[in-house]
Amino acid sequence: MSAPASGSDSAVLPRDGHPSPVSLRIALAQVDPCVGDLSGNSAIVVQQTMTAVAMGADLVVFPEMMLTGYPIEDLALRASFQTASRGALTRLAESLAAAECGGIAVVVGYLDADEEPEPTRPGRPRGGARNAAAVLHEGRVVAKYFKHHLPNYGVFDEFRYFVPGDAGTVVRINGVDVALCICEDLWQDGGPVAEAAHHPAGLLVVINGSPYERAKDDVRRELCSRRAVEAGCALAYVNLVGGQDELVFDGDSMVVAADGQLLARAHEFVSELLVLDLLLPVGTAAVVGAQLTTRAQPRPAIPEPVIPPELADEPEVYLALVTGLRDYVRKNGFSSVTLGMSGGIDSALVAAIACDAVGAEHVHGVSMPSRYSSEHSRNDAAEQARRTGMSLRTVEIADMFDAFTAQLGLTGLAEENLQARIRGTTLMGISNQEGPLVLATGNKSEIAVGYSTIYGDAVGGFAPIKDVPKSLVWRLARWRNDDAARRGEVPPIPENSISKPPSAELRPDQLDSDSLPDYAVLDDVLDAYVEHDKGAQELLDAGFSHDLVDRIVRLIDTAEYKRRQYPPGPKITFKAFGRDRRLPITSRWRELAAPDKAERQPGSAGSKRPA
Amino acid sequence: MSAPASGSDSAVLPRDGHPSPVSLRIALAQVDPCVGDLSGNSAIVVQQTMTAVAMGADLVVFPEMMLTGYPIEDLALRASFQTASRGALTRLAESLAAAECGGIAVVVGYLDADEEPEPTRPGRPRGGARNAAAVLHEGRVVAKYFKHHLPNYGVFDEFRYFVPGDAGTVVRINGVDVALCICEDLWQDGGPVAEAAHHPAGLLVVINGSPYERAKDDVRRELCSRRAVEAGCALAYVNLVGGQDELVFDGDSMVVAADGQLLARAHEFVSELLVLDLLLPVGTAAVVGAQLTTRAQPRPAIPEPVIPPELADEPEVYLALVTGLRDYVRKNGFSSVTLGMSGGIDSALVAAIACDAVGAEHVHGVSMPSRYSSEHSRNDAAEQARRTGMSLRTVEIADMFDAFTAQLGLTGLAEENLQARIRGTTLMGISNQEGPLVLATGNKSEIAVGYSTIYGDAVGGFAPIKDVPKSLVWRLARWRNDDAARRGEVPPIPENSISKPPSAELRPDQLDSDSLPDYAVLDDVLDAYVEHDKGAQELLDAGFSHDLVDRIVRLIDTAEYKRRQYPPGPKITFKAFGRDRRLPITSRWRELAAPDKAERQPGSAGSKRPA
Repeated sequence: MSAPASGSDSAVLPRDGHPSPVSLRIALAQVDPCVGDLSGNSAIVVQQTMTAVAMGADLVVFPEMMLTGYPIEDLALRASFQTASRGALTRLAESLAAAECGGIAVVVGYLDADEEPEPTRPGRPRGGARNAAAVLHEGRVVAKYFKHHLPNYGVFDEFRYFVPGDAGTVVRINGVDVALCICEDLWQDGGPVAEAAHHPAGLLVVINGSPYERAKDDVRRELCSRRAVEAGCALAYVNLVGGQDELVFDGDSMVVAADGQLLARAHEFVSELLVLDLLLPVGTAAVVGAQLTTRAQPRPAIPEPVIPPELADEPEVYLALVTGLRDYVRKNGFSSVTLGMSGGIDSALVAAIACDAVGAEHVHGVSMPSRYSSEHSRNDAAEQARRTGMSLRTVEIADMFDAFTAQLGLTGLAEENLQARIRGTTLMGISNQEGPLVLATGNKSEIAVGYSTIYGDAVGGFAPIKDVPKSLVWRLARWRNDDAARRGEVPPIPENSISKPPSAELRPDQLDSDSLPDYAVLDDVLDAYVEHDKGAQELLDAGFSHDLVDRIVRLIDTAEYKRRQYPPGPKITFKAFGRDRRLPITSRWRELAAPDKAERQPGSAGSKRPA
Repeated sequence: MSAPASGSDSAVLPRDGHPSPVSLRIALAQVDPCVGDLSGNSAIVVQQTMTAVAMGADLVVFPEMMLTGYPIEDLALRASFQTASRGALTRLAESLAAAECGGIAVVVGYLDADEEPEPTRPGRPRGGARNAAAVLHEGRVVAKYFKHHLPNYGVFDEFRYFVPGDAGTVVRINGVDVALCICEDLWQDGGPVAEAAHHPAGLLVVINGSPYERAKDDVRRELCSRRAVEAGCALAYVNLVGGQDELVFDGDSMVVAADGQLLARAHEFVSELLVLDLLLPVGTAAVVGAQLTTRAQPRPAIPEPVIPPELADEPEVYLALVTGLRDYVRKNGFSSVTLGMSGGIDSALVAAIACDAVGAEHVHGVSMPSRYSSEHSRNDAAEQARRTGMSLRTVEIADMFDAFTAQLGLTGLAEENLQARIRGTTLMGISNQEGPLVLATGNKSEIAVGYSTIYGDAVGGFAPIKDVPKSLVWRLARWRNDDAARRGEVPPIPENSISKPPSAELRPDQLDSDSLPDYAVLDDVLDAYVEHDKGAQELLDAGFSHDLVDRIVRLIDTAEYKRRQYPPGPKITFKAFGRDRRLPITSRWRELAAPDKAERQPGSAGSKRPA
């Protein structure tokens, strides 16, 4: 049992077989903390709790690792940060009481750790760090819960950071047994949910730091209903919202009844305090971790809980990208962004996202035409600036290009890459001089096959569409324009940027299709090979030609070195490049090589030519 | 019990209480496989085993994950690669028999996995992948062992990849019980070593993929002796040698007697077949996993086992850096390298390492002077080329610089960075045109505090000294020169490059000491804050001034975004940047901020100005 003995643990048994159910008013705080900002995050808790108190709530629930932000990575192992998190929790309980919020029960995620840690042993997280939830009441920490199931796949490394908990925590609030669990506990069989099924609680509270992925909301919705039925009680699911480096949290907080019915759901990607009344059975467990009675204010009338319509794929992804960029800019102290505007679809979409994220007046486009840039490229970039109100300046790169080639005599691919690198250097010069964050505009398809110039178009502090396959880039652009039209606004992206055939414009009449298969085909291969980790034989069985598979898989494998140096950007797919998909740069594994034939020809192991 | 029932498992009991000990000739193959190269790695096993057979060995032992290379990262999860590894093991056993190596017992590391995996569940490695050792004999796999203890700290993520084994494996070879374990099993208490203590084996074989760190050889040596005594038997430790992306394996294979005495040790950083005779007790265990008799060749005389003198810090680190660079170049199919030669100590040391790694004739220096470059800078670079035989060409950057500034009007820091980026673009142009790998020359101290230009001097495919603190850079340079002098060779590095005060030469009379504390002080702070994860209070307690700690810690924290895009380079310290130290870019945690005071001033959260 992980709850400290700060509450009474005497059990309250129901007076008869069927005591009257209790009405609890609960508030789910879907909010956006910042990693490391213990005081700022505490302030969010106090402010939201004051609102919840004013609305007459008995219980307010905050997401996983609310106090520290999430994920905190190796900060979890640092003694100074562990101490600060423990101290912040104690102070938060006191601050809440001082703010006349002592009477409400508050569930909040934080980093716990042993106060006097054992000497660190290799392979053990330092100081018994734990991914924890605390229940605060009347100025004190009355119960704690430690996450049982530590995710250690995909983007998660929680075995690196945390010692797993091994006991359930149930708190009796106004007679109702409220069981706690944290995120992965809900996804895995066994543990607290199974325990709740054996000793039915009145309410299962799940606090989460569950990153966005396309269509994950459907999976969560089904999971919450299934677990509520298994546990035999209502379930309140609270998730973070906002961006943190490569992750975006969509919120999607919800409440589900014991029969699995969805009762209320928050809007995705929006900070929101979801308040509703639940009629819950009186607790029957023989032992509870703590027992408390709330001093709820008189209950004002609250609106009926709503269930917003589910977002379609395009608006959901688009909002994720806007959220990811907005939070990266804001949380890192930038006030504006800059990007190269080629007139092509990638920079057009990134510019539209940037205008929505930080306001067009803070978006500074740079047109950097060369002798190979078409007239329509310049016009399309200018047209987008006109439509959105973002600024656009022009920097001709011919003189820089001539100065380099006079010294170096570059040709072919080297000459193509030189143009991209002059543009990258130009954007970085503007950033150094004037302060905006540089945005890289590459999409997932080109980053996959290495169709991008390292230190050229790959330059940037953030890459908003790095996890968006090219086919989806077009769909998002069309959706954004259509959505504007539906609202009677000017569509931000020039139709020509969407409809023209894609080109890098680094040599005369160049088209992407000179070097790459049709993007629809390429994206299908990527989906199978990158997202779903299929081997070559499975790709061939799926109907892709031998030549196509051989070529694309080889391009993807040998571009790993470029991806390592690519800027961060928001994950939206099942498997993003980066922490989600970790592969060696140095590798001779080739999916289509005969397994017993050594590949020893010079260069065949994937010459890592930068391009 | 993880051994398949392919060998006889009838126990052979000793005829009396004290049967005569058996002489086993064992061979430890300290070799350098390549990740993913199943056929090439199999070929190494066959070739080394043929040598072992010719030397009359009964048993030859290869390192952890020999067949697949190590670490294979997410390849461990891919079904096609799992199948290929299983197939390669079967074919290897057959190939050994075909090469008349059937009579020797061969221990080899590989990737095992369930043949028909259960459906993948979230949080479980796909298909029950296992970090495995196999014993091959007479064309067959006669026993298997699965690693028990999976390291999941530092650079290791083995909980992500492998299902842990839970049973010991003992193979009776010519009557001697040989127990197996894998790397981390030796470091952790419990598991196979403890088991061996309960049922004493005649020999404990430990196969390893243990990356180099400064002074780790001393720790390993002590550990092997301690574990041998605990297990009550001799211990044979075999480690990889060579480079794999950011890791370098130093080998350091050794044999220790049951009383802890070191009997033989391989040279560090060298492929080597260490052969020696051991007189071992006859096995007494009631049950063994397999039982086999070797058909050893007549035993030729072999040299007495040697114990090479331990390397001092400088030559050990220097060899690690040479090994890391050499293998990155070779395994990725490059035939030459290029780097900017400023005349300063960092590029001078990298050039010396490169000449040792790939031969001076494959090292192409580029001098890129600007108006701020001193005459001695050009001379020192030319002098090093003269001393070593590497090539040096000069590219004046004034015209490119003028072309950019005419268009962009950059000043101050932006102008300084522009020079570095023109140089980076120049090196990449040469790489694209002519094919060499670009080397970045940054050291750990400057990468720590962000004293480096992203897309400028940070450009490169590999960064040989990225984990070397500046103080050690000087020591390595001095050692390399002294070592040359001792051998009667020309010291490669001009004395002036070592002795002059460090300067970026990006503005008139600039010195590093204008912006940074003395490197000796800086490196002490880095050692405490980065290597040992001390908090601010601990740094203050150690005697560093408040201003110094505040400034350096802030610089380190806010330079994280640059480090994410820095090229890979070999880990040599306890904690390298990269997978070894994972911190968020977006973080408001400040070691010296008052914990209850929110930092909300614009920019105070660490404006991510690229510089």
